[in-house]
Amino acid sequence: MNGSAKLLVILVDETDNWEDMPLYEAICRKLVQLNAPGATVQAGIMGYGSHGHLHRKRLFGVPDDRPISISVVDDESNLRTRLIPAIKPMVTEGLMFLTDVEVLT
Amino acid sequence: MNGSAKLLVILVDETDNWEDMPLYEAICRKLVQLNAPGATVQAGIMGYGSHGHLHRKRLFGVPDDRPISISVVDDESNLRTRLIPAIKPMVTEGLMFLTDVEVLT
Amino acid sequence: MNGSAKLLVILVDETDNWEDMPLYEAICRKLVQLNAPGATVQAGIMGYGSHGHLHRKRLFGVPDDRPISISVVDDESNLRTRLIPAIKPMVTEGLMFLTDVEVLT
Repeated sequence: MNGSAKLLVILVDETDNWEDMPLYEAICRKLVQLNAPGATVQAGIMGYGSHGHLHRKRLFGVPDDRPISISVVDDESNLRTRLIPAIKPMVTEGLMFLTDVEVLT
Repeated sequence: MNGSAKLLVILVDETDNWEDMPLYEAICRKLVQLNAPGATVQAGIMGYGSHGHLHRKRLFGVPDDRPISISVVDDESNLRTRLIPAIKPMVTEGLMFLTDVEVLT
Repeated sequence: MNGSAKLLVILVDETDNWEDMPLYEAICRKLVQLNAPGATVQAGIMGYGSHGHLHRKRLFGVPDDRPISISVVDDESNLRTRLIPAIKPMVTEGLMFLTDVEVLT
C-alpha cells in the first residue's frame, strides 16, 4: 500500500449503538470482516454537535459519551467500493470524511 | 456539508488558559457560539515543543500538561471568514492547520 | 512555518520496543534530537492490524497494547531529508503517512 492512498475518518459517539454493541465496535468488526488492513480507534475528552450534523448544544460530554474517531488507511478503490458502502449505512448521525495521504511504510 | 470541505486542527496545551478557563474549553465555547457544526477534543499522552513553535525540551508531559487537539470540519468559507479569525487570536503559542477533506456523510 | 507544510503520522503499538524503551518514546526522543519543531502523541482505545500491515485479527487491544499515533507538522523538505530517513528504520511493523497541511499559526 505504499504511495497514494486515502485516510477514512469516522466520528461517532461512544453511546451510539448498533444492534447489541457500541457502534464503534460494530464498525471495527465490520472492517475486520471486510479485511480492511487496519483501524485505530481514539476517544476524545469532549465534543459537541453529534460530530458535524446535529446542532444540539450538548457541550462537554460526560465520560460515558465521549466522541470516538475510527481511522483507516487503505487504497481509494477498496475504500470506495467495499468499505465505505458497508460502513455508511451504520453512521446515521456521525461524520465520515476522506483525506489524501502518501503512505511511506 | 457533503463534498469538499476543510478540517481545522488546533493544538494547544492542557494548561494553557484563556480568561478564567482552560484555553481548549474557551475555544470550544467560541465554536459553539459561532455555530460551528461540531468539534472533537482529544488529549495526547505526551508531546513537546509547545506544538510546533517553541523549542522548549519539555518532553514527556506530566498528566496535567497533555497536548490537546481540537478538530472541526466545516466549509472552507465559514472557516476562513468566521471561525479562524475568531480563534486565531486565542492561540498564541499553539499550532493551527487546515487540510482538505471530502465529507461523505 | 506558515503556509504549505506536511503532517507526518506514525502509527505503532504501545508494546513495540526500541532498544530499552517503548518505540513511541524512542521516536519522540529522536525527533527532539533532530530538532523537529514539535510532536503530539495520542493513544487509542482499540485497534487491529498492526496498523495497516499485518492481518493478525488481534482485535480490541488490552489496555497495555493500545495503538499509538505520533504526529509531527514540519516543512516537507525537513521531513523528507532528515526526519523520515531517521524514523523509518525504527517503524518496522507500523504505518507512516504524510498529508498536506496549510499552517495558519
